[in-house]
Amino acid sequence: MQNVVVKEIFDGFNEYLNKEQELREQIREVVREIDQAAKEATIALQVIHSSLTEVSTACAAARNQFEVCRKGYQRLAGLIPEGQYYRYNDHWHFVTQRVVFLVALTVYLEKGFLVSRDTTAEVLGMKTKKVDGFHLDIEDYLMGVLQLASELSRYATNSVTLGDYDRPLVISKFVADLNSGFRLLNLKNDGLRKRFDALKYDVKKIEEIVYDISIRGLRGDSTTGSTAAPPAEQ
Amino acid sequence: MQNVVVKEIFDGFNEYLNKEQELREQIREVVREIDQAAKEATIALQVIHSSLTEVSTACAAARNQFEVCRKGYQRLAGLIPEGQYYRYNDHWHFVTQRVVFLVALTVYLEKGFLVSRDTTAEVLGMKTKKVDGFHLDIEDYLMGVLQLASELSRYATNSVTLGDYDRPLVISKFVADLNSGFRLLNLKNDGLRKRFDALKYDVKKIEEIVYDISIRGLRGDSTTGSTAAPPAEQ
Amino acid sequence: MQNVVVKEIFDGFNEYLNKEQELREQIREVVREIDQAAKEATIALQVIHSSLTEVSTACAAARNQFEVCRKGYQRLAGLIPEGQYYRYNDHWHFVTQRVVFLVALTVYLEKGFLVSRDTTAEVLGMKTKKVDGFHLDIEDYLMGVLQLASELSRYATNSVTLGDYDRPLVISKFVADLNSGFRLLNLKNDGLRKRFDALKYDVKKIEEIVYDISIRGLRGDSTTGSTAAPPAEQ
Amino acid sequence: MQNVVVKEIFDGFNEYLNKEQELREQIREVVREIDQAAKEATIALQVIHSSLTEVSTACAAARNQFEVCRKGYQRLAGLIPEGQYYRYNDHWHFVTQRVVFLVALTVYLEKGFLVSRDTTAEVLGMKTKKVDGFHLDIEDYLMGVLQLASELSRYATNSVTLGDYDRPLVISKFVADLNSGFRLLNLKNDGLRKRFDALKYDVKKIEEIVYDISIRGLRGDSTTGSTAAPPAEQ
Repeated sequence: MQNVVVKEIFDGFNEYLNKEQELREQIREVVREIDQAAKEATIALQVIHSSLTEVSTACAAARNQFEVCRKGYQRLAGLIPEGQYYRYNDHWHFVTQRVVFLVALTVYLEKGFLVSRDTTAEVLGMKTKKVDGFHLDIEDYLMGVLQLASELSRYATNSVTLGDYDRPLVISKFVADLNSGFRLLNLKNDGLRKRFDALKYDVKKIEEIVYDISIRGLRGDSTTGSTAAPPAEQ
Repeated sequence: MQNVVVKEIFDGFNEYLNKEQELREQIREVVREIDQAAKEATIALQVIHSSLTEVSTACAAARNQFEVCRKGYQRLAGLIPEGQYYRYNDHWHFVTQRVVFLVALTVYLEKGFLVSRDTTAEVLGMKTKKVDGFHLDIEDYLMGVLQLASELSRYATNSVTLGDYDRPLVISKFVADLNSGFRLLNLKNDGLRKRFDALKYDVKKIEEIVYDISIRGLRGDSTTGSTAAPPAEQ
Repeated sequence: MQNVVVKEIFDGFNEYLNKEQELREQIREVVREIDQAAKEATIALQVIHSSLTEVSTACAAARNQFEVCRKGYQRLAGLIPEGQYYRYNDHWHFVTQRVVFLVALTVYLEKGFLVSRDTTAEVLGMKTKKVDGFHLDIEDYLMGVLQLASELSRYATNSVTLGDYDRPLVISKFVADLNSGFRLLNLKNDGLRKRFDALKYDVKKIEEIVYDISIRGLRGDSTTGSTAAPPAEQ
Repeated sequence: MQNVVVKEIFDGFNEYLNKEQELREQIREVVREIDQAAKEATIALQVIHSSLTEVSTACAAARNQFEVCRKGYQRLAGLIPEGQYYRYNDHWHFVTQRVVFLVALTVYLEKGFLVSRDTTAEVLGMKTKKVDGFHLDIEDYLMGVLQLASELSRYATNSVTLGDYDRPLVISKFVADLNSGFRLLNLKNDGLRKRFDALKYDVKKIEEIVYDISIRGLRGDSTTGSTAAPPAEQ
């Protein structure tokens, strides 16, 4: 008798548990595809550290991969039941931050400014307005932007190697702006704050590059000169 | 110029970040109230370990506290924006598992059977059907039921001390049923599975008590006798 | 010029830093003395686990050591400048919790009840009322009481070995009372709460000892009998 | 009976525990306000790294935020019961060290010398003389001064970028003085000593900047020349 009762209560649970596990498996599969595209985009964009002339081509190649990511995110959006975005979003936090970084790097290389969250979401086929449907988290966007600052400190170093002494100053101003932007945010004591604490090392690193250029008289502008951020290749 | 752009992008984020932090603070406050009621119910139910005659009174006192919990859960349900249940549910997982345990213990003491998830949710003013609104998680329900098994092993020990040699057998059958129920479930390798692994010690402990009673000829019933689970005091 | 200024600002600091280090050394010395007395009291009280007849003598020996502790605390009280109790109390938290445990054990063995914080403080020559002068912290008192519960679970075990089948029941009721008392407290999530979580194992352990006695018909009282807690040796 | 006694002993403790938790919550709130003002002051002072002409304005803006800090510290001083400064000061150590750094940076930019602990305390509405009331800890002051040295190494770098080849030498002398000052102190093996160990990297960094300037003949003064520390803009 009693046995029956416990069994009856538990019977429905397996369907629920199995469904969840299947869904997580499907999510993992899509996330792997997005991750693969992110890796290809990363490889394409690496060329900026060794060539001044292939930047446009690299950006175009990256943008092709963003198309793959967009399709992935659209499939994810279709998989996630209404109201359960936050139940599963641990699966794609990491890769999304990476993809945001790649989009932000590409837009910076193309146009010289910071891509907004809305534009990033648009590129990736995600929403930004609603926070209950499938959307681009503010935290993921900000984490991606912080990764951009690190990459740009490397880009500044290699620009000098490639003989471009103007770029580091432009990057320095841009990263200082990012730094000011982050300082305004009321971050609680979590992963984002921790990652932000590392930004100061990027800022300092880039300032030292600019210093090295300045002290050797390698700067092409006057000291008090232009603060405009020219796009990478024009 | 550029500075303005970053600032513009970041400006809206603080409102979002502040709102989230305020909401989390409000949630924490309600969770503290539910936790306090759970503590009072726990204290009331402790009497079952030292008295055979005060069980009904203890259950009644616990049920008063479940009313307090129900009000808390209704306030929580009001606080959580649509579609964001899973964004915040880490705040109440722990206390909810405790409350489920207390409800299950009370119903077991009153009626001798396992309370279903639907009934538990009803007692606490939560939904079970929809998984996107504020509901009683299956995992939380199952974790609470596992806590019940531990408490019943202690209850079996103390029943003997209080001279009740029949209760351990009844408890043993009930916990064996729970064990069978859990074995049916397709648990993935997580917290629930880990906690379930500990159930076998409760089962064993209770079986040893029944063995001690049997070998000393202290059992009042026939071995193959009634398997009905008589309510505690009738 | 500038050098002078920095030097002038820093000059006064060394006196402050040296004074603090000297004071901490003096405190450490007194704490070592209290610790030594606590060890001697611990050794004296160990006899309760192997003899039924030497309990009074053990308590008397422990009380002699409490006199040593009292002198130590009075020296400490003299060392600590007004308003700086909380600056230095990390030095004696640990030993004080141990001494509270020893006093509580001694009083329990002598009288069968829980020593109050006021009485403990009196035994040790400390204040309880003022929280700014040298006093017995509530946290330290409660931590000591939790150590008592652990020791009593061991005492219950060894009482059976020594042929005293009544003591475990008395201890079981006492520790259950302690457990209820702690449940009432609104502990925040800190060391005290963590230590309290371990109390349930002491409770369970003692209940199992009483169970073993009960099931073998070794109890001298009737099942529903006396709940009075007779002092150890009368 | 016994139950009553334990309950009586414990009853008063909850009031104490609750009061403490409420007070800590109030302290945290004020600390958050001071922290916010410190952030605004930090943002204002960042301009020194990218502009030679906006330093005075930045200092004025920072001083406005120190007014907010001062109000916060006065509220804190009102919250802390007499003789319990050291019970709660973990809450404001970190932010106070930051605020000391900001005050020291501002005074250095304005006047070119190290602000004393007394003056810093005065700016922040804290006492220095009594160590039992609400005061500015020597440790917090010294930690703030060490942060100043790091910031000045960055300031030296960026001064060069901005075409000011004289400032690094002035900074170098100042930081060398700080280093000498700290060497005089009898630091025990703690956080302050650890942080002081990092000062040598700041010293070295700044010396290398001065070296770079010297070897390129960019210095405007004679090597053995003026050691006065001219204010930033006069």
